[in-house]
Amino acid sequence: MAVYTHVEPDDLAALVARYDIGTVVSCKGIAEGVENSNFLLETTDGRFILTLYEKRVSEGDLPFFVDLLDHLAKRGCPVPAMIRDREGAAIQQVSGRAACIIQFLPGISLTHPTPGQCEAAGAALGSMHRAVADFAGARENSMGHRHWRAIAEGSGDLDAVIPGLQAIVDDELAHLDTHWPRDLPAHVVHADLFPDNVLMLGDRVTGLIDFYFAATDSRAYDVAVTHAAWTFSADGRDCNADCAAALMRGYTSEITLTSDEMAALPLLARGAALRFLLTRAHDWIHTPADALVTRKDPAPFLARLRRYQAADAARLFAAA
Amino acid sequence: MAVYTHVEPDDLAALVARYDIGTVVSCKGIAEGVENSNFLLETTDGRFILTLYEKRVSEGDLPFFVDLLDHLAKRGCPVPAMIRDREGAAIQQVSGRAACIIQFLPGISLTHPTPGQCEAAGAALGSMHRAVADFAGARENSMGHRHWRAIAEGSGDLDAVIPGLQAIVDDELAHLDTHWPRDLPAHVVHADLFPDNVLMLGDRVTGLIDFYFAATDSRAYDVAVTHAAWTFSADGRDCNADCAAALMRGYTSEITLTSDEMAALPLLARGAALRFLLTRAHDWIHTPADALVTRKDPAPFLARLRRYQAADAARLFAAA
Repeated sequence: MAVYTHVEPDDLAALVARYDIGTVVSCKGIAEGVENSNFLLETTDGRFILTLYEKRVSEGDLPFFVDLLDHLAKRGCPVPAMIRDREGAAIQQVSGRAACIIQFLPGISLTHPTPGQCEAAGAALGSMHRAVADFAGARENSMGHRHWRAIAEGSGDLDAVIPGLQAIVDDELAHLDTHWPRDLPAHVVHADLFPDNVLMLGDRVTGLIDFYFAATDSRAYDVAVTHAAWTFSADGRDCNADCAAALMRGYTSEITLTSDEMAALPLLARGAALRFLLTRAHDWIHTPADALVTRKDPAPFLARLRRYQAADAARLFAAA
Repeated sequence: MAVYTHVEPDDLAALVARYDIGTVVSCKGIAEGVENSNFLLETTDGRFILTLYEKRVSEGDLPFFVDLLDHLAKRGCPVPAMIRDREGAAIQQVSGRAACIIQFLPGISLTHPTPGQCEAAGAALGSMHRAVADFAGARENSMGHRHWRAIAEGSGDLDAVIPGLQAIVDDELAHLDTHWPRDLPAHVVHADLFPDNVLMLGDRVTGLIDFYFAATDSRAYDVAVTHAAWTFSADGRDCNADCAAALMRGYTSEITLTSDEMAALPLLARGAALRFLLTRAHDWIHTPADALVTRKDPAPFLARLRRYQAADAARLFAAA
């Protein structure tokens, strides 16, 4: 939940007046997006999301995100396009922040997806990968595997978060450094496709949102992140085999993974689990106790890491 | 900002199916209402607010609020009516909480009202008082003057919040106990009409919201609360004379205050300042440092109390 920056009504009216979207009817801060301030903006013409970018999204990256969403929207992906003002600009300044007015998409984020919903999410991810393959943009994945050691070292006392965590992380980093696959098919990927970031109505995906971690990485790593995000119990201990098979079935209905990619998935998933374990541990240590955001427990991602380390992990990625 | 309770999509669909309001299109937690969990619910028929009542609103009080809003809406006040399901019920149970689906009103809450907007707010308050005068319901004002001593005693160490505060509060409670006016015109009042709780478009009031402190008290006390809420600088040190005169002009265009009420206003405003000073000090002491809600600084209400204690305070309530 997040509304860090207030927008004065006069500033809002001036912003909206730059666009052909009518005049302001209502504007309510919404509890979505950990990184930015988000508002549900209603005008006489319709509904929009107003996003003000806070510290974690670099203003220099915004043109990349605008271009990426434009590209995906043009190819029919259900992503929220950035609205352009009369002069063609998508990026504005409001209340001292970079800001965009973004298309509103219907749908609700799930918390307990069914296998049918996992299949739809997998298919939506695959469809998005097909659409993004010819996108010309690129962005270093600052949350990608090359950066995990630095994130771990910058986190502070990992053992204070979970006793023994430092040794577990050191061992895993060594293993991943040795075995991380090279030369897998790569392009811009979402890299954070948790159920929070997928809007659905029933079993239908109506929106893929929050592309602010999107970056260049292997597409199979994106599958691994999505697998870790969608198929586990809340405590991370149990992977639901039906959900996992459905997710893979949905994805592979759109994308045929190579044998190298299939073989790499358990290791990529260990990496995905480590990535969220590390960033949650970092935020656990560094989030001030009086912050507006809720710290997320890292432990369920340690549990996922353990599951993906198991000898039988490959069967979690079978499509049937 | 507040979304304390999550609603599962299936539970939401089942709730909405009880009503003649179409099917769910979107549901987003909104950063409004300190006491409850609020969602902006869009259906195929329109937009609504879904409120889940958390600890501070007693479920037993909900029928009073439903009746009050019904009464005011029928008299043309811009208040959000509680929607009734097909069986006529306004109060439901969702995710273990009492819940209501409420009419959506356009408008934005101001942070820096102009004199013109203060006049409109005053007129809306007066108009609401005219409409509520024949409302049959009643509710003890648990935040009213009879309870301030208990709130002060239950707060803990007031001097830890502001050095010297305990003695100031003791003196003020003694003064108010001696001089608190009796037999002023009374009925159900809003009792919390801060700018947060008034929706406006330009200089027009489009909504009076958040009646969850509404209770039986003198109407002039409600004017005093609104005066304290609308006419001061953020630090509480300066009362804007233009805003104050405009607020009184707006109110008295709807309601002719008696001479007893006019004479009582500075004292009632001391009480209003003390009420928010005490409840903010209480919350300052008792809000866990890791809570989702932001603690509000009590100091600006001590500053208002000082202003209302001044010998010339009566002139802050002149309409011209």
